Amino acid sequence: MTYTAKQTRQFYRGWDEFYAKSENEKLDFFKREDRLFDVIFAQQFDRPFLDYICQLSERVRQLARTKMGADKLRHLLPHKRCMLYFVQPSTRTFLSFLNACHILGLSVSESRGTSTSSEVKGESQEDTIRTFASYMDLIVARHPEAGFAEKTAWVLNQTDRPVPIINGGSGPDQHPTQALLDIYTLERSFKDIGGLDGKKIAMVGDLKRGRTVRSLSYLMKNYKDITLYFVSPDIFKMKPDILGFLDKHQIKYHQTDDFESVMPLVDAIYMTRIQDEYADDTSQESGTYPAFHFKASHLSMIQPHCALLHPLPRRYEIEVDVDPDPRAAYWGQERNGMWLRAALIAYIFRVDDDILREFA
Amino acid sequence: MTYTAKQTRQFYRGWDEFYAKSENEKLDFFKREDRLFDVIFAQQFDRPFLDYICQLSERVRQLARTKMGADKLRHLLPHKRCMLYFVQPSTRTFLSFLNACHILGLSVSESRGTSTSSEVKGESQEDTIRTFASYMDLIVARHPEAGFAEKTAWVLNQTDRPVPIINGGSGPDQHPTQALLDIYTLERSFKDIGGLDGKKIAMVGDLKRGRTVRSLSYLMKNYKDITLYFVSPDIFKMKPDILGFLDKHQIKYHQTDDFESVMPLVDAIYMTRIQDEYADDTSQESGTYPAFHFKASHLSMIQPHCALLHPLPRRYEIEVDVDPDPRAAYWGQERNGMWLRAALIAYIFRVDDDILREFA
Amino acid sequence: MTYTAKQTRQFYRGWDEFYAKSENEKLDFFKREDRLFDVIFAQQFDRPFLDYICQLSERVRQLARTKMGADKLRHLLPHKRCMLYFVQPSTRTFLSFLNACHILGLSVSESRGTSTSSEVKGESQEDTIRTFASYMDLIVARHPEAGFAEKTAWVLNQTDRPVPIINGGSGPDQHPTQALLDIYTLERSFKDIGGLDGKKIAMVGDLKRGRTVRSLSYLMKNYKDITLYFVSPDIFKMKPDILGFLDKHQIKYHQTDDFESVMPLVDAIYMTRIQDEYADDTSQESGTYPAFHFKASHLSMIQPHCALLHPLPRRYEIEVDVDPDPRAAYWGQERNGMWLRAALIAYIFRVDDDILREFA
Repeated sequence: MTYTAKQTRQFYRGWDEFYAKSENEKLDFFKREDRLFDVIFAQQFDRPFLDYICQLSERVRQLARTKMGADKLRHLLPHKRCMLYFVQPSTRTFLSFLNACHILGLSVSESRGTSTSSEVKGESQEDTIRTFASYMDLIVARHPEAGFAEKTAWVLNQTDRPVPIINGGSGPDQHPTQALLDIYTLERSFKDIGGLDGKKIAMVGDLKRGRTVRSLSYLMKNYKDITLYFVSPDIFKMKPDILGFLDKHQIKYHQTDDFESVMPLVDAIYMTRIQDEYADDTSQESGTYPAFHFKASHLSMIQPHCALLHPLPRRYEIEVDVDPDPRAAYWGQERNGMWLRAALIAYIFRVDDDILREFA
Repeated sequence: MTYTAKQTRQFYRGWDEFYAKSENEKLDFFKREDRLFDVIFAQQFDRPFLDYICQLSERVRQLARTKMGADKLRHLLPHKRCMLYFVQPSTRTFLSFLNACHILGLSVSESRGTSTSSEVKGESQEDTIRTFASYMDLIVARHPEAGFAEKTAWVLNQTDRPVPIINGGSGPDQHPTQALLDIYTLERSFKDIGGLDGKKIAMVGDLKRGRTVRSLSYLMKNYKDITLYFVSPDIFKMKPDILGFLDKHQIKYHQTDDFESVMPLVDAIYMTRIQDEYADDTSQESGTYPAFHFKASHLSMIQPHCALLHPLPRRYEIEVDVDPDPRAAYWGQERNGMWLRAALIAYIFRVDDDILREFA
Repeated sequence: MTYTAKQTRQFYRGWDEFYAKSENEKLDFFKREDRLFDVIFAQQFDRPFLDYICQLSERVRQLARTKMGADKLRHLLPHKRCMLYFVQPSTRTFLSFLNACHILGLSVSESRGTSTSSEVKGESQEDTIRTFASYMDLIVARHPEAGFAEKTAWVLNQTDRPVPIINGGSGPDQHPTQALLDIYTLERSFKDIGGLDGKKIAMVGDLKRGRTVRSLSYLMKNYKDITLYFVSPDIFKMKPDILGFLDKHQIKYHQTDDFESVMPLVDAIYMTRIQDEYADDTSQESGTYPAFHFKASHLSMIQPHCALLHPLPRRYEIEVDVDPDPRAAYWGQERNGMWLRAALIAYIFRVDDDILREFA
């Protein structure tokens, strides 16, 4: 049992007002000396930051290729201690953060689920978070509650140990490091053809509830001359808020339920999981919308340079036979997440210069 | 299912007799070359040790402030491997031991709960412990069973791999590293006013069952001219064994249920959790004894130097509005636990001299 | 719910045919440049490898005795990251692999059980394994399913990140690192009397289902002039496949249910757990076959050099009173597992030369 509301409202004043503000109004709150300090939502990333973090990720990856480079990386942050607070099940995000920490030498403590925690003794969330901050220098939090990571950062910014917070996924709304690794993967896929600017990207599946495609759509405002194709069954169409945002920023988009018609047109296809809201795990294929799956037979229909992405885990959306094709970028995308997260942590602790200096 | 009794009595002879002895009779058993080897109960700590471990904790903290100092610490014990065997839920004690190990560079294995262990295959506790000792060089054990850590040390001291044991909390009776960090926090709070000697300390809450206040009371015999104020409802009064001990050592104490009358008199207030034995988690405030809570309105009633402690987690005992006051020492107290435990491990492995030498 | 069959058959062609082959036909598949790459079953080990890995284990153990040596070891593989994927409960195997990694400096990620994993989202086993390979450089897998580790290696060998796999126990059939540590323990026990060649070894208990005694019997073909004594109740006799194998390789063996008659004859006794198939944990001793237990009173009946082994955990098979006898080798055997596994990992990553060079 936790008791957030009445008890803590007096000290931690103003959370409700703060939370109600728009993302833009909150940007400064999560910065220090004009740099990102807490990483809470995708709206914090502008083009210079996106370009920089992609470059930095690439450098981390290159350094890690040799034992000497790996040693350099591992000696950057061995004096820092990180808390991975993952209240929700997660394989990929957890493991990629953990190994990102290993790459930079950070010590890691982890809490997965709440059964071993003091929450069973009735401690408030705020106190649990402060406890992590007592022992550690960085908190990565994944929580089913919308706004959890933001609140964590907001609480700690009022104490004398405001350690940085990285949002590893808060409820249905935000998963900013996924958005970063998606951008990094797209930029990397297009590195010989001018990068992400000017590209056509299809997003396929459950666009209504998929937070990855929502964040990615938002980030498109940072790139020039993008065209989006939203491919979904009618009941899973992209929501009006994102469409309005795209209109406002004059980003072109098309909506369709005819996946095959879009395939030849685009430079990248971002597949997502799709499943009938009321279908259970053992459902027949009908509940999984096979018209929105990518099959091996489709490989002949897409362009030679087209990149296939998927945030993983997949179920039926991409046939396993597609995997050996060089355009299947999703396994590399997964690995990119590790390099990107290492780069992000290096940036937060301001050792990014030490990394770049290795290449000067 | 474990089968300790009959099967093991033959080899591990004499546990019952040993356990029945007084703490004083057992002191030598847990020593090596006139130093603490196993840390089992608070009665092992005398004044020279308490002073030394506080000094050492302070030095660890100071070193950790710079990357160079942190590197020194991390290179003290990287060749040692520690087992954190936490059968009981614990956030704070677990994390502070884990991060204390990280600070000194030890590798850590952990077992939390018993579900992943061989105990499901019917292994005896003694065998499980010996297994840990086969792979690791230090065992920190937290267990719901009274005397568990003591028995662990006793078993291993009869084998050819008697690795040191630290009691991380055994059932209702002992939590010696909590007692050490409480002493360290008090000494630190009073460092500009002559230290702990001569001070007046209130202990508030469930004094009958609270092992922290019991251990702390005991340790007061090591300090001069202490006055204790035991503040509790009648049904949670300090037990006669401790009162008898205080009488014997001529330590002054007062008992009362009038918290506010004590507030202006004391140099420190040690708050503890209090809850009606029969009240459940969702109980009304009445079951939580609000007359024994510390509220923001009380801040004007205590002395300017008075230190507020709490072993945490808290529920209702200290209002969150008290947190920003500089006299609220409990968050620092929590962090002190990490430095103190690092100091203790350094001491056990005899690298304390290496730490002090940095300041010579 | 996982969905291995239909979906993945197309890409991962031929698993069923591969799996059906004999071990000897598969040896090359798990090699790289004429060395073991994946460690899947005991049939991969020939005499030169067994001798070499025993020698290497001994060197690791010797190096680890000093801080300087331990530092050398720890700097061999700090740039490598290991996944311990233990779907089955395990204390010993898990902890010894974990600490073997610590000894060599590898970073470790762990997954114990499936509750925190993406399998709950319906991911296929193959995808979960590829995810581990995306972040890590080595996978140690323990799984209740026969053939799991083999399939893991087989899947990854078809991708562009074929990281090595070590089988930490797959279902009822194989536990190859246990077989290695058993050999290492026997060789070490006999090091002053000419090693394992020419020795008489009793295997006692449930020989029908015990995978350790089955693997060990198989490996005996690598040694000269071995005599085996299979001691078990009639219903737990060694199966015909092993007996046929021994006949084919002209390895002498005797079968008996008279344990005491064998005791004076042998150089080593390998005890295993024995329990009536239908007896539960709370069964009377009758279900545990006391005639196949080793008691303290038997110590006078075995030879002065006879080594007592047991894979642990034990229940009733060896009386605790036997433990202090110098011939009780099982605790050392357990610790040998850690050194052996460290040696094996060093070998796989080809840093074995760096270890041996320390002794040149």
